[in-house]
Formats: sequence, C-alpha cells, structure tokens
Amino acid sequence: MDNLPPNLLIVNAAQVVTPAKEWNLKVIKNGAVAVRDGKIVDIGRTGDVIYRVEPGAETLIIDAAGKIVMPGFVDPHTHLVYAGSRAEEFTLRLQGVPYMEIASRGGGINSTVKATRKASLDDLVDSAKARLARMFAWGTTTAEVKSGYALNHAGELKMLMTIQQLALEQPVELVPTYMGAHEFPPEYQEKRGEYVDLLVKTLIPEIGKKWLAEFCDVFTEKGVFSVDDSRRILEAAKEAGLMLKIHADEIVHLGGAELAAEVGAVSADHLVHVSPEGMDAMKRAGVVPVILPGASFFLNSDFAPARAMIERGLPVALGTDLNPGTCTIESMPIIIGLACLKLKLTPEEAIIASTLNAAKAIRRDSIIGSLEVGKQADMLIMKISDYREIPYRFGVNPVDMVIKKGKLVRQ
Amino acid sequence: MDNLPPNLLIVNAAQVVTPAKEWNLKVIKNGAVAVRDGKIVDIGRTGDVIYRVEPGAETLIIDAAGKIVMPGFVDPHTHLVYAGSRAEEFTLRLQGVPYMEIASRGGGINSTVKATRKASLDDLVDSAKARLARMFAWGTTTAEVKSGYALNHAGELKMLMTIQQLALEQPVELVPTYMGAHEFPPEYQEKRGEYVDLLVKTLIPEIGKKWLAEFCDVFTEKGVFSVDDSRRILEAAKEAGLMLKIHADEIVHLGGAELAAEVGAVSADHLVHVSPEGMDAMKRAGVVPVILPGASFFLNSDFAPARAMIERGLPVALGTDLNPGTCTIESMPIIIGLACLKLKLTPEEAIIASTLNAAKAIRRDSIIGSLEVGKQADMLIMKISDYREIPYRFGVNPVDMVIKKGKLVRQ
Repeated sequence: MDNLPPNLLIVNAAQVVTPAKEWNLKVIKNGAVAVRDGKIVDIGRTGDVIYRVEPGAETLIIDAAGKIVMPGFVDPHTHLVYAGSRAEEFTLRLQGVPYMEIASRGGGINSTVKATRKASLDDLVDSAKARLARMFAWGTTTAEVKSGYALNHAGELKMLMTIQQLALEQPVELVPTYMGAHEFPPEYQEKRGEYVDLLVKTLIPEIGKKWLAEFCDVFTEKGVFSVDDSRRILEAAKEAGLMLKIHADEIVHLGGAELAAEVGAVSADHLVHVSPEGMDAMKRAGVVPVILPGASFFLNSDFAPARAMIERGLPVALGTDLNPGTCTIESMPIIIGLACLKLKLTPEEAIIASTLNAAKAIRRDSIIGSLEVGKQADMLIMKISDYREIPYRFGVNPVDMVIKKGKLVRQ
Repeated sequence: MDNLPPNLLIVNAAQVVTPAKEWNLKVIKNGAVAVRDGKIVDIGRTGDVIYRVEPGAETLIIDAAGKIVMPGFVDPHTHLVYAGSRAEEFTLRLQGVPYMEIASRGGGINSTVKATRKASLDDLVDSAKARLARMFAWGTTTAEVKSGYALNHAGELKMLMTIQQLALEQPVELVPTYMGAHEFPPEYQEKRGEYVDLLVKTLIPEIGKKWLAEFCDVFTEKGVFSVDDSRRILEAAKEAGLMLKIHADEIVHLGGAELAAEVGAVSADHLVHVSPEGMDAMKRAGVVPVILPGASFFLNSDFAPARAMIERGLPVALGTDLNPGTCTIESMPIIIGLACLKLKLTPEEAIIASTLNAAKAIRRDSIIGSLEVGKQADMLIMKISDYREIPYRFGVNPVDMVIKKGKLVRQ
C-alpha cells in the first residue's frame, strides 16, 4: 500500500458483502472500501481501513451507515438489442394460443427479426439505452449482449455495432456475443445446411477478424440448431478466436450441456432439461451454468435444477435473459428474488451467482464480481442493512448509488 | 359544460384507457382528458376535447404523445404499517423450516407484533411513508391499510393514528381498516374467548365511535378466528358503523366466503380455497373478491381461482397484500403481471381489477377507479404506447407521471 489518498472512501456500511471462496459470502460489519484510479485499494472494517488509508482533499467520502456495499451485478445473458414489442403475443400465449399459430399470425421471433432488420442503428441504440439505464438503476454494472435478431449479415453487424455504440454512451460495461445462429433466417428455412455453411465458412471468420464480438453463441435446440450443426458452428468460432456459449437443453434434452463440455464453452445457458451426465460433463470441463429463472417464470415452464448443480460443485450463475419474446425482466434483484423463491437458492448463493459466478460466465472474474483489492471498483450501495433484504423485498429496488470503475454515477 | 378553463389538459395520448361497463376496457386512441378543480371535466379524442374545452393562461397542458393515460391504481388490501424485517424468516422458510419452528425461534407474525408494539408512531410513519412513496411511484393513488400488528388496544390505536398521520404527509389516499382480529394477541392465546368478547364489547365499538377506521377485517382461518368468532366480530363492527372485510379461505376452505355473503361484507379477500358455493353466495350478495396473487407467489402456494370467479360474473379485484411476512410486493404493475402470468387474467381484466374493481372493494367506485366526467382526477401517464405493455414488461415501472386529485405530483 502506497500513501496516495483514495478517490473514494466508503465508510460505516452496515455490511460490506462480497463473494469469497466457493459458495462463501463474506460479510464485514461496519465495513469500509477505499478506491483509487477505478480500483479497490483497501477493504475491511471501517476502523481498520481509516487507520490504513489517509483521505486527501480530493477524496469523496460516503457515509454508508445503515446501508450495504456489494459488487455490481453482472448480467451474463441478455438479448438487449432489438426493435418492436411482442405485448400482443404475450397476451395470446397466455390465452393458450400455440406458438406456431402466433408465428403464423406474424408473431414469434420472426416479428422481432423483421422489426430489427428495419430499425436504424440509432433507433436500436436509443431503445436499448433506455433499457440499460433501468438495468443500471437496478444495479447491473456489466452485461453480456447478444446479436441474433437480424440473421442477415448486414443486420447482425448493425446489432454488434449498436453494442459498440452503447458501450460509449452509457455506464454499463458490455460484452458482445455474436449469435447469428439464434434461429435460421427466413430466407434459409428451406436450405438450412447452406446457412450453417455460410456461418462456418464466411460469417463467423469475419466477425472474428473484425473483433466485433468476444463470444459466439448458438441456440442448440430441437427444431433449431442440432448438436452436429452447433458443433460445427462452435468449432469455427473457436478457430476465429471467439469464446463459446450455448443455449443448451432449454426446451428438451438434446445434449447441449455435453456439447458445451466437449467444445470447451465458457458457459452453457438455460439448462432446464439438462441431464445428470450433462452436469457431470460441465463440471469436468469447467463450463459455467447460467440459469435464467425469469424465462421459466415468464413461460410458466419448469425451472432448471439449480440445486442439483450446486450440489455437484458447479458455479451456477444467474442472468435475466432479457428479450422481447420470453422474458422482459431487466432487473437482477428481481432475478435474485425468483432464484430464491423458485430455484431454492439461498440469498447468499443467489448473490454470488449474480456477481462472481456471473463474471465467470463471461470470463471477467479476475477483474469484477467481488470486492477485492486490485479488482475494478464496480460497487453498489444499497438502502438496506442486510443483504437478505434483496430477495425478501421482491420488486423493490434496493439500489441507492452505483459506482462504476470507481466513479459514482448519479442517476 | 361551463366555459371555465381546465387546470390540466392532457392531449395526444396514444391511448386513454379506462374501465367501462362490466369487463370492458375502453381505449380512446389519440385521446385527451381535461381536469378542473380535481375532477375530470372532459375526456375523448384530442380533436374533440380541444374543440369543447378552452385552455386558459393557467392551464397546464401535457403532451402525452406516445404514452397512455389511465386511472391511478387502487390497492385494496395492504398491511402497510409495521415495524421490523422478516428477511431471516424468508430465508428459513425457503429452506423448508416449518412455520411453527420459525415461530418458536421468534419469527412469524409475533415478531412483527413485538416490533410494532415497541415502535413509536413517528417510526411507523417514517417506514410506511418510504413504502408509500415507492407505491406512488409505481402508480398507486389510493390504498387500503389495515391495523392488526399490535393486537393490544393502545398499539392498534397507534397504528390507526399512523394511517391518519400518513394521509396528511404524502399523496396516496388511504382507507383505514381496523384489524384487531388479525391474530389472537400473545396475552390471550390461552383465553381466546375473552379476546373475542373484548373485541365485540369494547374495542370495536370504541373504534367506531372514534371514526378511526372505515372497515373492520378479520382473519377467518383454521387455528385463528373461527367462522362463529368472525360472525360475532363482524356483526359488532356493523353495529359500530364499520364496513366489513374478511380474510377468507386463504389456507383451507373454512367458509369465509359464505360468511362474507351472510354478513354483507364489501369484500372477501385471498379466496385461494373458496368453494363454488362460496363464489355463488358472494355473487348473490354482491361481495367483491379481492385476489392477492403476490402472496401465492411469495409462499409458493396455490393461486385463487380467479377465472372461475370472472366466469361467474364476480367483479374480481387485485391487491398487493403488502406485509412483512407473506408478501413484500408494493407494486400494482407487478401484481398485474402476476395476475396475467399466474391467474390467466387478460391484460384488460387485470387493469380493470386493479382500478375500478379495486375501488369497488373499498366502496370508492363512485369517485375513483375509472376516467369519467365527474370522477376524481387520479390518473397515470405511462411511458408505453399500449396498455398490454404493463404486464408484458414485468418488473419495469411504466409510470411517467402521477396525477392525484388533478394535481401533477412530481417525483
């Protein structure tokens, strides 16, 4: 520790809460955190930190008495960028209208594809920016964002450029994922093999060359991309320098989790119908399971076996799955509430799953996801004196202030 | 229509939405609403309203282009006033710890009773005011509030005076309900008959004389107040000039709905285990069913048969049931989302149930709950262009501005 004064010093917090080892949530009572140049430089009991750290004239001191300090939420799975609304489809679905009929009436993913293809980059930036502002207000400081609603090359590039533009215009840090394999484009419904060839031989290599995405994702599902298609796509993505994600075993058990393990994916997501063998394979291969309880809640479908994964030692992460068709939830505290109520995670597990494990799912866990000396100072000050109030006060936004890279962002 | 200018004129709304007859939601495209002296003086298409109404120099004109205008939400069932937190109990319950063991460890309703008895009136006002501010921000303009967490006479009076004080200090209009029969006080667990006598002979008549409550409510449930106890309590309340409500058939079918019909209650609430005969009796007697899906969601229990009630022609209302033990949800839009997803109400039904029918449940439907000439101007301007976005964008607060008694309240 050198003697330069911190830029920011938070003191007197009722609890400083951070994931520690494994499923251990460390709670420091009457805690303090010191930040310099966007990084955490000290953390501990207030008495100890103010003994070690000397504030200067420029130090912003925040008295967090009666409040908690914790890492910013990481949302590792969103389809944030899209145009249009599917409120009508939402209504029809609840009345029991089958998805195929909704699709034939112009609903379903193709309605989003149509609207997103038509939308200008500015329109996509504006609508996504409004969502990001709300996500930030609920405490999300980093989010993964997928393409996959244009499904033609120009449109997918437009989506990835939208993400780049959004990263410049607002404080939530974004991790772009290319998902040209979200669905077969309408133009290729009758020649699906050709689309896979196009992805593998042309599109994915180009995305890799242009550095437009960090990850490549594929919807491995019955009626969409088969395990064999998915394997080709992911191998091509690996070749192109992209890291891998899979939408796995969401609607039926197809072996997406096993494929994730085989190709060395960073995460496998959804996993509602994952098999025990799939979980074991993920564990051996170090694949992070990303559970999306908002989608199960929204679709009135089954919930993923999160407890079985935790019992196997898998680092379960939580995400919103924010998208216009199957989950419009933007708030990680609401997801934490659902995880406790419906997946039976403890509040401790749900917080770790939304911070450190979510950071693992986007390979950022060495930088963010916990409060440790040297890590980026992405932090929340919450208007609650106990972290268990986050799931308990369902639907209440507990966020008081958001600190991103050491900077207090006023809302 | 005289020719005085309105105080407030909202124009160009994408939709003006209001309950009309029965389950009919009226939608006026490109709509306008004019308000004078706290009341609605005109409503219709923008072109028609601005032809009929002459704005003056003092008229506040709001351009609601791309937004919707609708009645403020009425929350007809809350236990808003309480002290303490039961976040720890929330955690234990999800881990499967039985309620009796939680109670023996100091949790359950008695922990709230203990904390509420100890709390000062100022403390109760402050904590409830913070909740009301959030409720108002989510669009609740009128809320019923129950006593029932002190269960001794001084404490119950303190709760009712808290509600009176809150009514003066913030914009949400409050309807006070006396619920000394929320549970047997710890002091009377072994002499329950004496407590019922005390309620019937002393406490309820005094509440009536002091005009401290409009309604009297009772928790008619196995192990709490029997149907016979409840009948005596409600008859005494009627005698004392109070209107009646019942917590009916929540955990088991005990006949609370039938009793509500028998004694002429304004509403019967919860109704998870209501019988077909109970529903029929309510229909004949004109009892409003208040459904509280937040409690079912929070407790992972069954949902009330809302569709069966609607099919019987019952004017189903929705409420939060906001309370520290079994539902901390404060937001009516979240309740509307749950009602669509879990009770299978249509968005139209859910909106009517949260406005006009909720007003019926507190006997305010001649004054509030819909946008009609002569009614109180309690209105919301929502940042959405279609009312179906309220349930569809689950967890997203759609409220842009709240107008209470014709006055725009800035947040």
